[in-house]
Amino acid sequence: MAQALALGRRGMGQTWPNPAVGCLIVRDGRVVGRGWTQPGGRPHAEVVALAQAGEQASGATAYVTLEPCSHQGQTPPCCDALIAAGIARVVAPVADSDPRVSGQGFDRLRAAGISVTTGVLTAHALQDHAGFFLRVEQGRPWLTLKLAMTLDGRIATATGESQWITGPTARHAVHALRASHDAVLVGGGTARADNPRLTVRGHEVIRQPVRIVASRHLDLPLLGDLARTAEEVPLWLCHGPTVGADLLTAWKQLGAILVSVPLSAGRLDVAALLQTLGSRGMTRVFCEGGGQLAASLLAQDLVDELHVFTAGVALGAEGHPGIGALGVDRLADAPRFALVDIMARGMDVQHVWRRISLG
Amino acid sequence: MAQALALGRRGMGQTWPNPAVGCLIVRDGRVVGRGWTQPGGRPHAEVVALAQAGEQASGATAYVTLEPCSHQGQTPPCCDALIAAGIARVVAPVADSDPRVSGQGFDRLRAAGISVTTGVLTAHALQDHAGFFLRVEQGRPWLTLKLAMTLDGRIATATGESQWITGPTARHAVHALRASHDAVLVGGGTARADNPRLTVRGHEVIRQPVRIVASRHLDLPLLGDLARTAEEVPLWLCHGPTVGADLLTAWKQLGAILVSVPLSAGRLDVAALLQTLGSRGMTRVFCEGGGQLAASLLAQDLVDELHVFTAGVALGAEGHPGIGALGVDRLADAPRFALVDIMARGMDVQHVWRRISLG
Repeated sequence: MAQALALGRRGMGQTWPNPAVGCLIVRDGRVVGRGWTQPGGRPHAEVVALAQAGEQASGATAYVTLEPCSHQGQTPPCCDALIAAGIARVVAPVADSDPRVSGQGFDRLRAAGISVTTGVLTAHALQDHAGFFLRVEQGRPWLTLKLAMTLDGRIATATGESQWITGPTARHAVHALRASHDAVLVGGGTARADNPRLTVRGHEVIRQPVRIVASRHLDLPLLGDLARTAEEVPLWLCHGPTVGADLLTAWKQLGAILVSVPLSAGRLDVAALLQTLGSRGMTRVFCEGGGQLAASLLAQDLVDELHVFTAGVALGAEGHPGIGALGVDRLADAPRFALVDIMARGMDVQHVWRRISLG
Repeated sequence: MAQALALGRRGMGQTWPNPAVGCLIVRDGRVVGRGWTQPGGRPHAEVVALAQAGEQASGATAYVTLEPCSHQGQTPPCCDALIAAGIARVVAPVADSDPRVSGQGFDRLRAAGISVTTGVLTAHALQDHAGFFLRVEQGRPWLTLKLAMTLDGRIATATGESQWITGPTARHAVHALRASHDAVLVGGGTARADNPRLTVRGHEVIRQPVRIVASRHLDLPLLGDLARTAEEVPLWLCHGPTVGADLLTAWKQLGAILVSVPLSAGRLDVAALLQTLGSRGMTRVFCEGGGQLAASLLAQDLVDELHVFTAGVALGAEGHPGIGALGVDRLADAPRFALVDIMARGMDVQHVWRRISLG
């Protein structure tokens, strides 16, 4: 199952709106088929692995990281494919919470005489599919927030200089994180200040993550790198309700997709923004700041995972804070995270934290 | 030599103004004597180890972490003790930079027919004795700065709440750091806000580090825990030149030692403060903030080592910054540190950095 989970993770960021599933087919102690959900979400992992196994699937055990689908979608149900191939046993950690599947996949397999084992490496599978489950259950994607900061939590000097605080090894790790998410999200301030491309570089990806900019007034440079590349890599612009039609048209003509988001207390309502992204199929979104957007997400308890890259440099109190005003007066009310991992990344440190309520 | 260095480190924080030296005596492949400089700096490591070895020192090899002293101080020179005991070979990584010794110890041993080997684990020995060397060569102690902060570099909420950001495991590690330094230093703001005792708790120490508060106006609570314990554990108060005689007398009567420090740009001159501490024998000082004092030390490039404890909590831009205003406009001018170590400390992260110029 650990191998199947590793296979599944190869598809992370590439399979939305579908889950990134892995499948390993084993017969007589030998692996005869390996598959993972392909970019765009099809074919499913089981179909890929069965095709590789061919006739050897008969009597074999299939390790699948999620309950096989039982409904006719754009492809026939995977349950039927497993049954037709003569699989004898299916091991899957967790049921699919999609109401079209939820338990029915396992039922269908059992009805066909296939032995079904669940509950293996459940916590890992729940984590790997957390974005998919969040979208199905709460309508929003998993949100990972990245902060690349100085020792004292600053992301730029008082004069706005921010490139580069962290080194090339940390930046390479950030690109890997981009690649494992469906979309990269930044606030308008960051898009203006850094003129970023927000693409994955230095790692092979078949499907670049969608670039999303949250900008209430849509006051972004029409001649910047995002605008220039909007035809090549998807660019979604989330804007407030009062943006003029001319500006919307200009961005549409550049190739951007415009997404209107309501305001809340004068800012883009980030909860509504994430619901909109969920409704459009997003399961994993990677936010790279800036401080204002990070603060809005944290204040609404919408940050599931935090990757902090800390550089060995101090900028002092005049520097721009990595997290803007949160409105927290008491320590007990501050958003808390549990430590998941720490790594040296060249000259920098990467620490990974997850929302405590999710364990 | 690694064992000798480990022995020497047992004395760290206890031996000032003397260096914390370790000594291992080995005869025929067997350890016959182990010693480290005792609290208060005497007896020296060699004398302790020789006493343990007794007659077995004859013909043995002594591993000493620093050149044995050759001058008559408050104790007879260690060189003479090694010669008298019949030691055949001395292995020591580095020469003592104290002009009363500097090479003369080695010369004296060689003149007595003892074989001398140097250059073994030199980098480690230089690091262990860095505070002693700094004091001898530059007149100031090694300065370790500790910052216990939120993910976003804050040390208190906007309303001043700061206990506790980090958890008990991190605090235990901080007490171990206190124990390995000659003194603990905080700014007046921290002394007022936290009413700290600044003693080592949860670790056995023979000699508590000196507590030092840097307070320009000496406006510290006369009924606080520091004042209450000034008779038990040394308390040094570094104040500016304009403090009234009554206040000085009151603190003297409580048992504090008063240290006058000149001002620089309206604040206590931290470079002068460290020179004063050096002249009083301090080799290793552990600064625990607050943000203002940390910033003054960083701005003057006086921080040799940084221990950052990061808690999985965010307080946002309104929180008190862990490092105050530095006056840095350009990233290239910001103080930079090299990563030395990272560790999980319970729910928190400890990362250790050292000034880059020192390697």
